[in-house]
Amino acid sequence: MDGFSQKEEQRLLKTLQQESDNLGLVERRKFLKNAMVMVGAGAVVAQTGSVIASSNLPPAVPSWSRKLGDGVLTNPYGLPSDYEKDTIRRTVGWLTPDRISSISMTPLHKLKGIITPNGLAFERYHGGLPDINPDEHRLIIHGLVERPLIFTMDELKRFPSVSEIKFLECPANGGMEWKAPQMEGLQFTHGMLSCCEWTGVRLSTLLDAVGVKPEGKWILAEGADGSGMTRSIPMEKALDDAIIVYAQNGEALRKEQGYPIRLMNPGWEGNTCIKWLRRLEIGDKPWYQREETSKYTDLMPDGRARKFSFVQECNSVITSPSPEVPLKVKGWYEIEGIAWSGKGKIKGVDISLDGGVSWRPAPLKGMIISKCLTRFSYMYNWQGEPLLLQSRAWDETGYVQPTFKQLRAERGGNSIYHRNAIHTWKVHSNGSVQNAQLS
Amino acid sequence: MDGFSQKEEQRLLKTLQQESDNLGLVERRKFLKNAMVMVGAGAVVAQTGSVIASSNLPPAVPSWSRKLGDGVLTNPYGLPSDYEKDTIRRTVGWLTPDRISSISMTPLHKLKGIITPNGLAFERYHGGLPDINPDEHRLIIHGLVERPLIFTMDELKRFPSVSEIKFLECPANGGMEWKAPQMEGLQFTHGMLSCCEWTGVRLSTLLDAVGVKPEGKWILAEGADGSGMTRSIPMEKALDDAIIVYAQNGEALRKEQGYPIRLMNPGWEGNTCIKWLRRLEIGDKPWYQREETSKYTDLMPDGRARKFSFVQECNSVITSPSPEVPLKVKGWYEIEGIAWSGKGKIKGVDISLDGGVSWRPAPLKGMIISKCLTRFSYMYNWQGEPLLLQSRAWDETGYVQPTFKQLRAERGGNSIYHRNAIHTWKVHSNGSVQNAQLS
Repeated sequence: MDGFSQKEEQRLLKTLQQESDNLGLVERRKFLKNAMVMVGAGAVVAQTGSVIASSNLPPAVPSWSRKLGDGVLTNPYGLPSDYEKDTIRRTVGWLTPDRISSISMTPLHKLKGIITPNGLAFERYHGGLPDINPDEHRLIIHGLVERPLIFTMDELKRFPSVSEIKFLECPANGGMEWKAPQMEGLQFTHGMLSCCEWTGVRLSTLLDAVGVKPEGKWILAEGADGSGMTRSIPMEKALDDAIIVYAQNGEALRKEQGYPIRLMNPGWEGNTCIKWLRRLEIGDKPWYQREETSKYTDLMPDGRARKFSFVQECNSVITSPSPEVPLKVKGWYEIEGIAWSGKGKIKGVDISLDGGVSWRPAPLKGMIISKCLTRFSYMYNWQGEPLLLQSRAWDETGYVQPTFKQLRAERGGNSIYHRNAIHTWKVHSNGSVQNAQLS
Repeated sequence: MDGFSQKEEQRLLKTLQQESDNLGLVERRKFLKNAMVMVGAGAVVAQTGSVIASSNLPPAVPSWSRKLGDGVLTNPYGLPSDYEKDTIRRTVGWLTPDRISSISMTPLHKLKGIITPNGLAFERYHGGLPDINPDEHRLIIHGLVERPLIFTMDELKRFPSVSEIKFLECPANGGMEWKAPQMEGLQFTHGMLSCCEWTGVRLSTLLDAVGVKPEGKWILAEGADGSGMTRSIPMEKALDDAIIVYAQNGEALRKEQGYPIRLMNPGWEGNTCIKWLRRLEIGDKPWYQREETSKYTDLMPDGRARKFSFVQECNSVITSPSPEVPLKVKGWYEIEGIAWSGKGKIKGVDISLDGGVSWRPAPLKGMIISKCLTRFSYMYNWQGEPLLLQSRAWDETGYVQPTFKQLRAERGGNSIYHRNAIHTWKVHSNGSVQNAQLS
C-alpha cells in the first residue's frame, strides 16, 4: 500500500464503491469510511511523517511542558486559541452600502465535519443587530385563528422540543459570481452557509394551539429588529418541518441568529427564517412585502420575476484544496468538500479533475442527514499537474447540481440569487488555487 | 386534547409505544417524535400562552424595534447574548487544593439537544492549561514499531479525516455523591460531561504508518502539558475507534481540550483521551504510571483496586426539572433528560415519579448515535404533588443502569469514580427540586 498509480487508485475506489453497493446503508457507510482510511493510510504515509532523527526532533521538553499553565475558570465561557485568530467571519466592504444591512461569512476553509460553531455562523442583518431582553419579548400568533395567543419565552419552552441538525444558507450565497469569478476565496464564494443543531418547538404545535381556520393558507412572520423584517410562509411548510427555535448547538440562540427566538424553515432561504421573531399572522394569501418583491425574487431573462423561490437547491463545493488551502508539496491529499440540498438527503457526489470532461465518484463520509451538510472525500496523488477541480452533487429527489452554463441558460444574468452551479477551482502547478469559471 | 388525566396519559403513551414497536427504527423514531408533539401540543396549550388582551400586550413597538442595531463584524468571532451571562462553566472551590489541577463543569441544565458548544465543554487539567504553538508542536510515534515517525500538524492533516459526535466524561462525574447527596445542582452532580463533533485521523491509520510489531500490545500516550499526563491504552482500542483529534464542533480544538491535538477514545474515561498529545510509545505491557495507579483506579471493599476501568458505563439524568430548573406553575411539562453509554447506543430509558416503585417508558427523541448523548422525554401533568424523579437507561449490550444500592453493594464506598447510579431529584410541592439519594 506504499503509494499506487492513479489508475490503480481509480480501480480500487471503483471496487470499493461496487462492494459497498451490496451492503445496507449503515454498513455501507462504515465500510466506505474504513475503506477510505485504508486507501488513505497506505497512500499518505509514503509522503507524510519523517523518520525520527536528531535534526527534526522538537526540544526534549518544550517550553509549555516546563511550567504550569493557568487554572480552570480563567475563561468560564471559553474561546479559541490565540493561534486561531484568523478563523473568523469576514465581510466584503463594497458588497453593501452599510454594515447594518450587510452580511459576514463563515470561514468554510477552516471548518471540519458538519457542525458550524456558533461563533462562526454567518450573519445577515437588514437593520442591525437588536439586543433583546428575553423577559420582555413576546410571540403573538393571530389572524385567521380560533384563539389568538401571546407567548412568553417560558411558555414556549414548556412545549415539547425537537432538536435537528440543519444547514442555513442565504440565497445570495455565490451571488457575486453570476457575472464572472471575482471572489478569491471559499469564504466569499460559499460562506453564506452554516450548519447547526437547532432546538425549539415545532411551528405545527403552536398552530394546533391557536387553531388555524380552514381559510388560513399563509403566515406572515415578522421580526422585532429595526428593519421589521417580514416574509410570507405557505401553511404547508409551517405544518411540515418548520421550528420556532430558541437554541443553537445546545446553548441559547446567538444574538446574530435571532435571540431569543427565530423561525427555522429547514432547507429554505435563510431570510425566510425570520430572526428576533415577534409575530405570526395567519392569512389567506401572501402579503408581498418589500423583502419578497424588491428583494429575494429572481428577475428572469423575459422580464418576469420568479417569486417565492424558497428552496435552496442541491449544491456542493470542494473545501480542500481551495484558494485558502493550497497544495504545499507533491503527494497524496484528501480532496474534501461539502454538499447540501434543501430538498432532502445528499445521494452522491462526483468530482472532476479536468473541468467536467470526466467524473469519478467521491464517497460520502460521516452522517448523511436530510437538509444538512454532508461531507465527501476523494484520495488523490498530486504530482504538480494543473487541475480544474469540480464537484457535482445530487440529492434523493434525483435533482443534479447544474453547470453554470445550464443555470445561466435557464435563469439569465439578472438575478443575484440561487446560484448553485458546479464550482471550479483552478489548481496551478505551484499548488496555488484560484477561483475559476468555465463558460 | 385539551388536557387529560394521568391515567389517560399513561394509556395514550402505552398505545403509542405499542404502535411504535410495529415500525422500523427510523419510522419508529419519526412516529414517536410526532406522537409526543401531538400529545404535547394539546396538553401544553391548556396551560400555556394567553389570549391576547390589552393587559398582556408588549409595547406595540419595543425599544429594540425603534432603532438600528450594530452592523456585522462587531464580533468577528461571536459570543452569547449578555442576557445569557449565567450560562458558564463552574467549579467547586473545595473540590481540589488548586485550580491548576482541577475541573470546571458544563451547565447541563441550560443545554438542549446533544451538542455541547465549545465554550461550555467541561475542562480538567492536571498541571494547568498550556498554550501550545501548533507550528512547533510534533507528535512522535515510537517503541515497538517498524518505522518510528514524527509528524507536524500539517502532516497529520493530510491523512483522511473522520468526524464523529461522541460524549466525553470524567470518571469522577458524580463522584462527590458516593457518601451522601451534597451537590445542589445538575451542573455539579453530572457536569463533567460534554458531547461534541470530533474530527481527526484514526489512530489505526497512524499505526499502519509506523508498522506496529507483533509484540506491541499497549500504547503509552503522553501529553505536553506541565504535568506530563500519561495513560496506557490497550492496542485493541487503538485499532478499534480511537482518533487523533484536531477539531471540535467544526473548528480547531479548544485549548482546554488539548489544542492542537488530543487522543479521543470514544466512550472511555476522559483522562485516557490525553490532551496536548506529543508522544505515543508502543510497548508490550502497560506502564502503570502515576495517573493509572494512585488515581483513576477504584479501591474495592476487599482492599484490592479495579485498574484500567476504562469504559464509562450506561448512565442517565433528568435535566428538566432539576435543582436549577424548578417547576414554576402547575400543569403540563416535558420531563426531559440525557442518557449515554460508553459501550454503544442507548436502547431505552424508563422514568419513575415515585423513587423507583413504578416505572414508565420515556421515549427517546432525536438522533440515536453510539457513545453519544441521547435525549429522552416524557410529558407529565404536574398538579403540585411531591415527586421522586428518576431515570433508568439501558444500552444495546443489555447493560442496565444500576441503583445506588446495587452499585454500592458491588463497589463499596472507597472509590470516587464510575458512579453511574440511578439519580433521584426530589420535587417539592412548591416546585423546587432537590438532590436526593434513596438508600
